[in-house]
Amino acid sequence: MDPSEFRRHGHALVDWVADYLSASPRPPVLARVAPGAVEAALPDAAPEEPESFEAIMADVDRVLVPALTHWNHPGFFAYFATSASPPGVLAELLATALNQQAMLWRTSPAATELEAVATGWLRRLLGLPATFEGVIYDTASVSTLHALAAARQAAMPGVRTHGHSGTGRVYCSEQAHSSVDKGVALLGFGLEGVRRIAVDAAFAMQPDRLAAAIAEDRAAGHVPVAVVATIGTTVTTSSDPVAAIADICRREGLWLHVDAAYAGPAAMLPERAAAFDGWDLADSVVTNPHKWLLTPFDLSVLLCRRMDVVREAFSVVPDYLRTTDGDVKNLMDTGIQLGRRFRALKLWMVLRSYGAAGIREMLREHMRLARLFADWVDADAGFERLAPVPFSVVCFRACPASLQGDAEGLDRLNERLLDRVNATGEVFLSSSRLRGVVTLRLAVGNFQTRLEHVARAWELLTRETTRLLASA
Amino acid sequence: MDPSEFRRHGHALVDWVADYLSASPRPPVLARVAPGAVEAALPDAAPEEPESFEAIMADVDRVLVPALTHWNHPGFFAYFATSASPPGVLAELLATALNQQAMLWRTSPAATELEAVATGWLRRLLGLPATFEGVIYDTASVSTLHALAAARQAAMPGVRTHGHSGTGRVYCSEQAHSSVDKGVALLGFGLEGVRRIAVDAAFAMQPDRLAAAIAEDRAAGHVPVAVVATIGTTVTTSSDPVAAIADICRREGLWLHVDAAYAGPAAMLPERAAAFDGWDLADSVVTNPHKWLLTPFDLSVLLCRRMDVVREAFSVVPDYLRTTDGDVKNLMDTGIQLGRRFRALKLWMVLRSYGAAGIREMLREHMRLARLFADWVDADAGFERLAPVPFSVVCFRACPASLQGDAEGLDRLNERLLDRVNATGEVFLSSSRLRGVVTLRLAVGNFQTRLEHVARAWELLTRETTRLLASA
Repeated sequence: MDPSEFRRHGHALVDWVADYLSASPRPPVLARVAPGAVEAALPDAAPEEPESFEAIMADVDRVLVPALTHWNHPGFFAYFATSASPPGVLAELLATALNQQAMLWRTSPAATELEAVATGWLRRLLGLPATFEGVIYDTASVSTLHALAAARQAAMPGVRTHGHSGTGRVYCSEQAHSSVDKGVALLGFGLEGVRRIAVDAAFAMQPDRLAAAIAEDRAAGHVPVAVVATIGTTVTTSSDPVAAIADICRREGLWLHVDAAYAGPAAMLPERAAAFDGWDLADSVVTNPHKWLLTPFDLSVLLCRRMDVVREAFSVVPDYLRTTDGDVKNLMDTGIQLGRRFRALKLWMVLRSYGAAGIREMLREHMRLARLFADWVDADAGFERLAPVPFSVVCFRACPASLQGDAEGLDRLNERLLDRVNATGEVFLSSSRLRGVVTLRLAVGNFQTRLEHVARAWELLTRETTRLLASA
Repeated sequence: MDPSEFRRHGHALVDWVADYLSASPRPPVLARVAPGAVEAALPDAAPEEPESFEAIMADVDRVLVPALTHWNHPGFFAYFATSASPPGVLAELLATALNQQAMLWRTSPAATELEAVATGWLRRLLGLPATFEGVIYDTASVSTLHALAAARQAAMPGVRTHGHSGTGRVYCSEQAHSSVDKGVALLGFGLEGVRRIAVDAAFAMQPDRLAAAIAEDRAAGHVPVAVVATIGTTVTTSSDPVAAIADICRREGLWLHVDAAYAGPAAMLPERAAAFDGWDLADSVVTNPHKWLLTPFDLSVLLCRRMDVVREAFSVVPDYLRTTDGDVKNLMDTGIQLGRRFRALKLWMVLRSYGAAGIREMLREHMRLARLFADWVDADAGFERLAPVPFSVVCFRACPASLQGDAEGLDRLNERLLDRVNATGEVFLSSSRLRGVVTLRLAVGNFQTRLEHVARAWELLTRETTRLLASA
């Protein structure tokens, strides 16, 4: 494909994407294919001779599109809803063509410095002080892994050279993300290295329980390494009392990492400041613009007050990567990955395209819609809400009078309700368990989601509940 | 930006990229900006109000383009040259707009199954048996980290739960990539956990030295965990004797990981089969389509015969990610990252767009060009070649009669030569050290590189050497 063919196919593809972003009717949010359908529809081997772009796109339409779950759909309410906003998509097209690999400053001054600029802009918007330096990774799991590796380096200074021998311990709440377990296991402390602290009625970590666990571990000869506090937990979006936890960390000399992967952008809103109280005392904070900040997947930002410790944990410079560029930052020194994509471009373009005002407006609208939905749940005697709604996620379940007290029946009803609602193709919600019961979740977060989509989700939930109960 | 604005800006951007891919004259390969120039040219804070796409693109042209080092340029000969081929760029545009997040099969059946299809196609092209299962990560550093974590799980079965206490040891050659050091340190064995085995005259690992090191470590109470053999090392592209190393690993019960991040695609060529002898005996193999396989950065493939062990090391399934989709593969189980991009799309589109025949043709042409350049070096008494040329990289230096025997003078000359040649903006080469001496490297690998570019590199090298010697 030469540049003139690229031009022709590129124009056609831009039209394809524009049509996709405005499709009416929209395709089913949750894919309807059976497992194995895609593999069965494609040959076992690559073609020997080149194929035309038209032939490939025909297979995209025929085989892949029906097998997509449409994350970029206004009816996507599962997990955390995300957005590949149009400016973010264009930025990624540009970044891909430029093919920057920013391992060293000299291999991409633009990507290296724009990463500092874009994460600095984000830091200011979030209200964190300039002592926090930003670096971009792919996912929050990887950001948290880097924070925990730095925490280990701080707690066990010999680890970089000699490895660790003690049994390190990392603390987080029962509601913290599974990436803490994965990270701690990868570091070599095992899943036992994670101590999950009990939460209160609002699903927030109980600081006195944390302090007790640390004391207990010290007495048993373990090495406390870090505490992971969460602002916006994965299921209920609850927040841990960060200020109180920071106090314990300071006293105990422990690294405090704050997981605000989802909720971080809400720090831009003065009216949400309470949830973020004390997060400026953290050693590191992760937030994911690819979740609630209009940026196409993937882009996670780690803001860290002790990036020197991250570098101490990760910097390894072989001869062929030595440069004489002077006192520059080389991104390879802040991570396990040597190669670094030009991810900053899409964050920078999104921040400029929407402006701080546009982003605040979207965040507020998503929270208003979630609040509305919560009100509908609260007002309906056949439903119950299972957690507070501090941001844009509602946890709830159908709870008809006929099944009061029948725990198993309620679980089964809600599982079937979820399947039925998702089978309509108009919306996609996910579920979890809270205090042992099946919990449905509606997460507002896609840039195209409007009142009509949330209202339709509620309509489908009530309609399908009625049908399920009628057929029972 | 609504879909109609996306359409308009998208068309303009496609034209921008098409112009970029065919620019004449081309911009300087190596960026000429001073450190800090990009940061200084941009405001300290994000704008409050939205800005137009035109305004943002004006800053791209004004601030970012001069600060790019052009990896996608035919004169890029540094490190390993890479390609964002036109079909790969289009695939990434599509993947970004679709914003798939393939943590679970159900969250993207298309991305999950196309990852199996595309890595299966690649596996067949490389001649590896179907017992190798493929998974896509971002970089070879991360692929190797996963292989080493699986190796640790295999060698220390309790590590997932209890953590490790022994001092694990990983073996690789003196010429192996620094990602081995980073991975082993991250796993908690420390940099001392890497034992670098001496190489022979052709920069290949010496198996008897490997066997001796393992025996020595066992005697000292260390726990041998894995051997990393390299096919196509980072500096000289030498290859370790994989079959002999596999034999040792089998005898010792050690995981064998083969790093073919760069050279892997050459396994498609029957005439290069010797370098790959025995790699089918490995437990895992990494190769990076984003290096020598036309795929935009980033995309690394881990092919593994024991993916069950990778899953054992990494799978953690919280309630909110439990599904009832039956016996499907969930990509989140094969890695530290929970979120997974739709990276397979670009690999699949590249393989179809070029076809196996087109890819083989490119690989052979790059090797022919490197061989030609090596012949020019060999024929010139003022230069010397410093390593064999098994693939598409040439290691050499200027070595004029006037500086024979002056080790320091030769190093200084070659450092200055590199700076002068790179300052022309027409080409970009990198350097390293081999057996203590400054070594220049010419790496052919960009899809637009032709004879004229390699010839021009040689012209500039000889011209600048003459000038440097004349001014000395």
